[in-house]
Amino acid sequence: MRRALALAATPGVPLHPNPRVGCVLLAPDGSTVGEGYHHGAGTPHAEIEALTAAGDRARGATAVVTLEPCNHTGRTGPCAQALVDAGVARVVIAQRDPNPQAAGGMDTLLEAGLEVDAGLLADEAAEINRAWTFAHLNGRPFVTWKLATTVDGRSAAEDGTSRWVSSSAARRDTHVLRGLCDTMLVGTNTVEVDDPRLTVRGDDDEPVGEQPLRVVMGERELSADRKVLDDSAPSVHLRTHDPAQALRTLYADHGRSHVFLEGGPTLAAAFLRAGLVDEVVAYVAPMLLGAGTSAVGDLGIGTIADALHLALVDTTVVGEGAEANVRMIMRPTKRS
Amino acid sequence: MRRALALAATPGVPLHPNPRVGCVLLAPDGSTVGEGYHHGAGTPHAEIEALTAAGDRARGATAVVTLEPCNHTGRTGPCAQALVDAGVARVVIAQRDPNPQAAGGMDTLLEAGLEVDAGLLADEAAEINRAWTFAHLNGRPFVTWKLATTVDGRSAAEDGTSRWVSSSAARRDTHVLRGLCDTMLVGTNTVEVDDPRLTVRGDDDEPVGEQPLRVVMGERELSADRKVLDDSAPSVHLRTHDPAQALRTLYADHGRSHVFLEGGPTLAAAFLRAGLVDEVVAYVAPMLLGAGTSAVGDLGIGTIADALHLALVDTTVVGEGAEANVRMIMRPTKRS
Repeated sequence: MRRALALAATPGVPLHPNPRVGCVLLAPDGSTVGEGYHHGAGTPHAEIEALTAAGDRARGATAVVTLEPCNHTGRTGPCAQALVDAGVARVVIAQRDPNPQAAGGMDTLLEAGLEVDAGLLADEAAEINRAWTFAHLNGRPFVTWKLATTVDGRSAAEDGTSRWVSSSAARRDTHVLRGLCDTMLVGTNTVEVDDPRLTVRGDDDEPVGEQPLRVVMGERELSADRKVLDDSAPSVHLRTHDPAQALRTLYADHGRSHVFLEGGPTLAAAFLRAGLVDEVVAYVAPMLLGAGTSAVGDLGIGTIADALHLALVDTTVVGEGAEANVRMIMRPTKRS
Repeated sequence: MRRALALAATPGVPLHPNPRVGCVLLAPDGSTVGEGYHHGAGTPHAEIEALTAAGDRARGATAVVTLEPCNHTGRTGPCAQALVDAGVARVVIAQRDPNPQAAGGMDTLLEAGLEVDAGLLADEAAEINRAWTFAHLNGRPFVTWKLATTVDGRSAAEDGTSRWVSSSAARRDTHVLRGLCDTMLVGTNTVEVDDPRLTVRGDDDEPVGEQPLRVVMGERELSADRKVLDDSAPSVHLRTHDPAQALRTLYADHGRSHVFLEGGPTLAAAFLRAGLVDEVVAYVAPMLLGAGTSAVGDLGIGTIADALHLALVDTTVVGEGAEANVRMIMRPTKRS
């Protein structure tokens, strides 16, 4: 299973929309007869790749797979039936499939008379597809809220200028984190005021890799010349102010698992108040403004006992010298 | 000189009001005939301790000393004359004495015909008495401003409650830093609202070690029952709103070298606007309030280009688990 997990975590595999899966086929004597991992949407699943590699040697073999083999026909056929057809004798599964559309593979295997074990290293397998697992279990995407702030909690100066609070090193780091998500989310106000591109860009400021879906939420009409509407990546305008409704739509209609929330203080506050922020990434710049836009809007908190507490998961200094910003990654510990 | 610097930096020596000094006496053959370091106000200076240890062997010796031997008679006699009287042949000095009241020792030595060299490892010697050196060179104490803030820059909630923004681990750490200073400084408003003790306390909340002078700034009268006026440590009320004037008084009349500024946002802003903050220690708590008192008051900054930039000197996570706060130590790089 460790080998299957390592295969699943092979770098470079797109995170959206499919989970990352690894599979190892073992002969009765314990030797490996086939390996495979999922390379991204539209390509063969891990089990199929391993079966192809094994050929006839799959008969009587044990399949070790990080995720319950799928039971549905999407762009590829159901893996559970393929394992049965190849004559595999036993299947060892780490994580059960949390996706209701694909689940049922284990039943198919059991009905065909195969021996099946599930749960081995299940937590490690789920961690490889953390946001995907979260989305299927909760019916909405995992939400990472990113903010850039001065030490005194300002995201912009009194006149609205905010370029730049965070250093260029911190902004490069942000693009790496954007690339780990499948959805960028801001409000209409940010689009009108800042006109961001919301793409994942490299050091040369050019788009790199598969681009997340660019989502603008709010009822206000967008000007046609906004950069978020250009053809560098797909975009969607969700005409709602309700965070829960927006997230439901992104999961159900767009198959999204991981939202990177980069909206302004008002949109961030709406998500926080609704208990719909699962991770906070704060870039703290060693800078003071003394006035200006607060990094987060009103949370309805009047006294210190009601503060929204977060658990500090990671603290890293990003950049060096005058570029140094402190990145704090936090997770909520208490929901209001 | 390295040995003399190590002697000067002997742990446990009080930092106020005298500098830390180390001295090594070497015979013409290079062997050590005496060593000494200054143990604190009212005790023999380093040179005298070394001369006493050497006795007759001081004749013809070389004295290696981290600070220019003093030329004035305070609670102890002038060291320069003592070196001459003991028949020392040569004196090697690291740092020249920045204190105008004590300087002139080198001239005394030269006039008596001794060979004198100054400047060897002078920067390292100055670093051992960083605040003391700064104070004498600038005619005012070095100012460390400490603040406790949420990630969104709040030092108190909307109703004024602030116990506690920082974790108990961060507060313990603050007492360690207080103990490295010789002066605690707040405004009258903090005394009236929070009624702090402003003492250096240990884990059992009892005062430990030599206590800094407790200074309250502002023209408002203090209630007699305020804790800062109790007998646990000396206190002074400076009836001024002017940071520069307060610092001049603390240096000239009270011989102070290092102020730990723990006032509220308004007092902190007054010092920042005057360019009189030399170091910022921010404890950032992984917590959001969304509203409440800003960690720093108005700095007269209207646009991002005028932001007060700080250089990040150190980033440390203080405390573990729910106690974890991020301590950022910064120094100003640009003065408005």
